[in-house]
Amino acid sequence: MPETPDRDQTGRKEKIPGPTVARLPIYFRCLAELKERNVRIVSSGDIATAAGIKASQFRKDLSYFGEFGIQGLGYPVEDLLDRIRSIMRLDRRRRVVLLGAGNLGSALGNFPGFSRWGFDVVYVYDSADEKIGTTLNGIPVEDIGKLPKELDVELGILAVPPEAAQTCAELLTRSGVSAILNFTGRPLTAPKGTVIRNVNLTHELAILAYNLAGEPDLVV
Amino acid sequence: MPETPDRDQTGRKEKIPGPTVARLPIYFRCLAELKERNVRIVSSGDIATAAGIKASQFRKDLSYFGEFGIQGLGYPVEDLLDRIRSIMRLDRRRRVVLLGAGNLGSALGNFPGFSRWGFDVVYVYDSADEKIGTTLNGIPVEDIGKLPKELDVELGILAVPPEAAQTCAELLTRSGVSAILNFTGRPLTAPKGTVIRNVNLTHELAILAYNLAGEPDLVV
Repeated sequence: MPETPDRDQTGRKEKIPGPTVARLPIYFRCLAELKERNVRIVSSGDIATAAGIKASQFRKDLSYFGEFGIQGLGYPVEDLLDRIRSIMRLDRRRRVVLLGAGNLGSALGNFPGFSRWGFDVVYVYDSADEKIGTTLNGIPVEDIGKLPKELDVELGILAVPPEAAQTCAELLTRSGVSAILNFTGRPLTAPKGTVIRNVNLTHELAILAYNLAGEPDLVV
Repeated sequence: MPETPDRDQTGRKEKIPGPTVARLPIYFRCLAELKERNVRIVSSGDIATAAGIKASQFRKDLSYFGEFGIQGLGYPVEDLLDRIRSIMRLDRRRRVVLLGAGNLGSALGNFPGFSRWGFDVVYVYDSADEKIGTTLNGIPVEDIGKLPKELDVELGILAVPPEAAQTCAELLTRSGVSAILNFTGRPLTAPKGTVIRNVNLTHELAILAYNLAGEPDLVV
């Protein structure tokens, strides 16, 4: 296959827009549900309705990843599900380290969705004496001061208090973590090559409240 | 003041783009931090750097809400903070009802950021016998079967298992809730006029993992 300038070695176009990437899990979930219901062929319109977007958006999102579907017929559910699983690299299990075993950390360590999608929290660290030595979803909570320099885990979840956010992020990257899901509400500075995704629950509630009086009747 | 076609009665332009609204809390947090550090004037460049976006984006976002800042000088921090607080309606306290007192619900009921931003979880409901009658952050956990028809609360947080999502969403809207922060991972169908914001923690982790191998060195 000749190389095309806008695709990398895996055939994937480079620079996939963030919103497109953010919709892939939604498509994946919709397709998984269709498969469970033994639906074999689906139209872009049906998926779009289930995902709450426009059919043209769905087709455009898919176009970043190659050719899909059969003209005039639709998309074979199982094939599209497999391909999105592969694009998202959900076809393997991934190990995750969790920093913070407080209320939110405990909820995340027990979150059933992670495991269902192949993410296994395998290490939990905290700094509080009353947490260290307990277990979280079967995982021993260890002293954050003893986080090893080479943990052999790429994905980290940060659920520590805001004032500890940056220090703990540095501990994570020093131990080899290169992607951090950041629940602390504080922006992080991290070494080049680190991917950070911020999830700010307070902001989510504030955005919801803003839209309440603003523009009713929509998913925001 | 003459009416202009693209502004509503509060002077706010209609149809503020979702991404603009989603950045308002980030600006608000940045400005609050600047004020704490006694910074009085800030440039769009400084705020943009702190928020992790481009200065032109910041100025464009603000432009939806009127005139801000002093040409050639910058933005008075306290004034801009007050105005964004007012735009986001964070200048009042808001009551919140929480459905689900499991791991995630407990974390949300105790989440310190909510209260700091004026959101008070005042009711908690669950269906599990072992939860009902306990307290969560000082709030008694009540039987979801006894959710009254008129709760006088606009904002609801849904942290129940996925299979209970739709039923509980209907209980919420029947009790007068018109905005739901949905952590169940299931899309909801709600009556016209209801605002829904979906927060899917599994999707967040999957999006992070996708970006790990894809495009390093970025906030996604």
